Amino acid sequence: MNTRPLTELPVWQALEQHAADMARPENHLKRLIQTEDRINAFSLNRSGMFYDFSRQRVSAKTMDLLFELAGERKIQETFLAMINGETVNTTENRAALHTAARDFTRPSLMVDDMDVIPEIKRVLTEIEDFTRAVHNGDITGSTGKTFKHVVVIGIGGSYLGTAFVANALRAYADKGVTLHFLANVDIHNFGAIADTIDPAATLWIVVSKSFTTAETMANANQARKFMEARGLNPADHFVAVTSKGSPGDVPGETAAFPVIRAFHMFDFIGGRYSVSSAVGGVPLSLYLGFDRFKAFLEGAHEMDVYTQNTAPEENIPMIAALISIWNNNCLGYPAQAIIPYASPLSKLAPHIQQLYMESNGKSVTADGHPVPVNTGIIIFGEPGTNAQHSFFQLAHQGNPFPIDFIGIINTQYPDYNGKSKGVTNHQELWANLISQPRALAEGKDGDTPHRSFSGNRPSSTIILNSLQPKSIGRLLAFYEARTVYEAFIWGINPFDQFGVELGKKLANEIRGQMAAANEDPGHTFDGVDPISKFYLEMLMK
Amino acid sequence: MNTRPLTELPVWQALEQHAADMARPENHLKRLIQTEDRINAFSLNRSGMFYDFSRQRVSAKTMDLLFELAGERKIQETFLAMINGETVNTTENRAALHTAARDFTRPSLMVDDMDVIPEIKRVLTEIEDFTRAVHNGDITGSTGKTFKHVVVIGIGGSYLGTAFVANALRAYADKGVTLHFLANVDIHNFGAIADTIDPAATLWIVVSKSFTTAETMANANQARKFMEARGLNPADHFVAVTSKGSPGDVPGETAAFPVIRAFHMFDFIGGRYSVSSAVGGVPLSLYLGFDRFKAFLEGAHEMDVYTQNTAPEENIPMIAALISIWNNNCLGYPAQAIIPYASPLSKLAPHIQQLYMESNGKSVTADGHPVPVNTGIIIFGEPGTNAQHSFFQLAHQGNPFPIDFIGIINTQYPDYNGKSKGVTNHQELWANLISQPRALAEGKDGDTPHRSFSGNRPSSTIILNSLQPKSIGRLLAFYEARTVYEAFIWGINPFDQFGVELGKKLANEIRGQMAAANEDPGHTFDGVDPISKFYLEMLMK
Repeated sequence: MNTRPLTELPVWQALEQHAADMARPENHLKRLIQTEDRINAFSLNRSGMFYDFSRQRVSAKTMDLLFELAGERKIQETFLAMINGETVNTTENRAALHTAARDFTRPSLMVDDMDVIPEIKRVLTEIEDFTRAVHNGDITGSTGKTFKHVVVIGIGGSYLGTAFVANALRAYADKGVTLHFLANVDIHNFGAIADTIDPAATLWIVVSKSFTTAETMANANQARKFMEARGLNPADHFVAVTSKGSPGDVPGETAAFPVIRAFHMFDFIGGRYSVSSAVGGVPLSLYLGFDRFKAFLEGAHEMDVYTQNTAPEENIPMIAALISIWNNNCLGYPAQAIIPYASPLSKLAPHIQQLYMESNGKSVTADGHPVPVNTGIIIFGEPGTNAQHSFFQLAHQGNPFPIDFIGIINTQYPDYNGKSKGVTNHQELWANLISQPRALAEGKDGDTPHRSFSGNRPSSTIILNSLQPKSIGRLLAFYEARTVYEAFIWGINPFDQFGVELGKKLANEIRGQMAAANEDPGHTFDGVDPISKFYLEMLMK
Repeated sequence: MNTRPLTELPVWQALEQHAADMARPENHLKRLIQTEDRINAFSLNRSGMFYDFSRQRVSAKTMDLLFELAGERKIQETFLAMINGETVNTTENRAALHTAARDFTRPSLMVDDMDVIPEIKRVLTEIEDFTRAVHNGDITGSTGKTFKHVVVIGIGGSYLGTAFVANALRAYADKGVTLHFLANVDIHNFGAIADTIDPAATLWIVVSKSFTTAETMANANQARKFMEARGLNPADHFVAVTSKGSPGDVPGETAAFPVIRAFHMFDFIGGRYSVSSAVGGVPLSLYLGFDRFKAFLEGAHEMDVYTQNTAPEENIPMIAALISIWNNNCLGYPAQAIIPYASPLSKLAPHIQQLYMESNGKSVTADGHPVPVNTGIIIFGEPGTNAQHSFFQLAHQGNPFPIDFIGIINTQYPDYNGKSKGVTNHQELWANLISQPRALAEGKDGDTPHRSFSGNRPSSTIILNSLQPKSIGRLLAFYEARTVYEAFIWGINPFDQFGVELGKKLANEIRGQMAAANEDPGHTFDGVDPISKFYLEMLMK
């Protein structure tokens, strides 16, 4: 990875100068998009994805400079190094191999003297076998009931990716299984699920690499007591997704935490990149069927292969990453919205929010020097057209932010074709999808200042043919690749997350104070900082 | 309202100078919070809410200047004018009276020669009667089945507030009613609900002031066909929440859109402020019971009374607004997160995102002059501790943004008390709630750059005693007041939303093209702009 300060690079300086040029009135988007072939010149249709960046504030020169930047920073070389198992996660001395989790063609890949491919295949086969046994009724709960409720106990990377894919493909969940997510340690999360499930027909999946994550283990223990109180044997109702050798990797009744089975996850796949591993594999196979999970992996793999083999000029994730850098660092936008015109993608923005902000919310390069420009931006979003009726007032007339619009050609519900005003609901949705990027780009002079639109607000439009497992895999891999490409341009490590450690450490101290007060009602919080002490007394009084 | 350019005010210039002072190392938050009485000096416990701004980057001088600014801009006077029914929505020549919807003490309030209080009371009584009749089984579906599913068809302000309150109080939903939200025109939203409900036991609530909102009417028509196809009479299964005299305000079978009953909404209550009106009242009463909806209104009213009667120094919503302005305009933060440590508040951030960004995403003052500083910022958020495992890496080590932390002393599930590591789940949640603002404020020098935390990242902490209807009302009214106070400081109108009109207009044109192509397969899209034409051909081919 190239970590030389970006601002020292001639191409970076050229980009900054060029940004001033692109801010001139003759380069307002309303002028740029008037050109008849703008859409053809600034779009790509590759690997099952149509990507339109015609309404970004870029010219041919912008793209040339950005491609030069990509070359200078060797981001394609770093991407290949990642895929080939090199130690790209340098601060933690690890590979980053989420792409290997969906590579069914590679015969072997050595990492630290271990061939990871057979390991990954073994886990996949275990998932397939377990899924079949649950769906067949060969594996049941303590009372012989088949499992109808699956509760995923996991937080962050052990939750959001799976929730995104499960929501996206909910229309195909034909296995009679309802999927629940117990992520938050908040007892309300547990209580709401406990109110809903049939315990005798419930399988709990505890997802934690170390099997020590505070929130996850608190919830797992709560669930275990809940099941025991109902005369159900935890060894019949829990599985683990965890590291080899963790406290959860001990099937059978005699374990500290009894489970039916443990599925391995690997330290070369980070949490926020883990939906392609057993983390997503076990719950998604139970919910959708193993074949659909496998098709999801295949779609992601197709995007990986395309991405790694394609020159910058034709490379959708790379272009998206370069434009994101341009918008953030050269044009100064502090955030980006993801607006899928598809309700099933309602969990896409929260997942990418995690993926991107945890990967790229860093201030120092991989080798420890301050990054001289802004790194990760804020990602947020809601489905369209909902977002139009929520925060799009600000998008049109407030401080601008770039948007990824996402559209789908074919719906999961082709049979609901009733028309209003001469169009189907799906066409109504598309009428808006077509119009919003145009309104943002063009703007309009109004009769009054309140009805005027400055325009020049950038967006991309991504079109998928359908919401099938494969296309969801492609979409995931697109955002994963875009995220790491941006990191490679800044020279930061997108695979560590030391920023969460200080809060954890302080929470450990506070937890110790609470536990002491639980044991001894006379415990005082001496020595605790004044504000924490104030709150400890408020809660524990 | 005072709309003189902010930057011309001496107090504004003093604030900008003072901001440079507060940026000096000796005013780093880690120093400010060392003072023993910081928490007492910078917190308030009023109207059922504890508000702690000790970890904002403010000093006594900051607050004095901000209070001076509030006086200069006459924001309390404008707030009172709003409550008293004056035409504060000047661009639309209307009052803004969401506060009147929950005022049970005021005998009368004249607006345009109409006393609005008896009108509001009449609608409330109608909601109470209707709710009782549905719960009693006096009003049923076509086949005599009692209503077990209620589907709210409404978008934006007709959706998000109700969804927020319904989620917050879900633990008390003891009427045997499941609540669904059909907001998006996306057919996936409809299909997912159609898969779930029992049509004969389903009541649809169509919420639209004009009864012409494109998305809402497309969904209402889709639902009507769906019911008719199942032999169910729409006149037995739909109600309207709409303006007096709208096409939906016609009960009975002979109407263009037949409904059991129509509940009135008023043009002096805007969509994003409407959860206190029949918009929230009909679905929330059916879901939670009328008494709980009424208690929610009472809580909101208590906050309104406190807010309107309290001097700036003791006024929580005003202080929150002033600090938000300070963070945005003087310290330069481009966004703010809302992080409730309470899963039931998972829809708070999306609701406030709408409320705030649609109200304050403006570029011109109420009298049409450009605002010389940034107005509305981006609001986003997820519940804690989930957010810690998602985007808090960026919060701690990336580009900072201020945060509202929210905590709850008593849970809705007091009986789940199992302990892990010596603490209950609720205590574990609080250990994190106590620690995160401290970690953000203090920071820490690490052994390596990757393990270093710059700190000085501001946050407020809001504590409610419990998640009961009254406290949810208070929380809503707090954010509503905070939002309009900020608008009054900038001199913008928080009650209009002209920014959504251009996109609607363009979508009307595209819809017309689609309808023509549906009628005539030979229709060509001549005269349409090139990019829109490209997409029309992609979809309609």
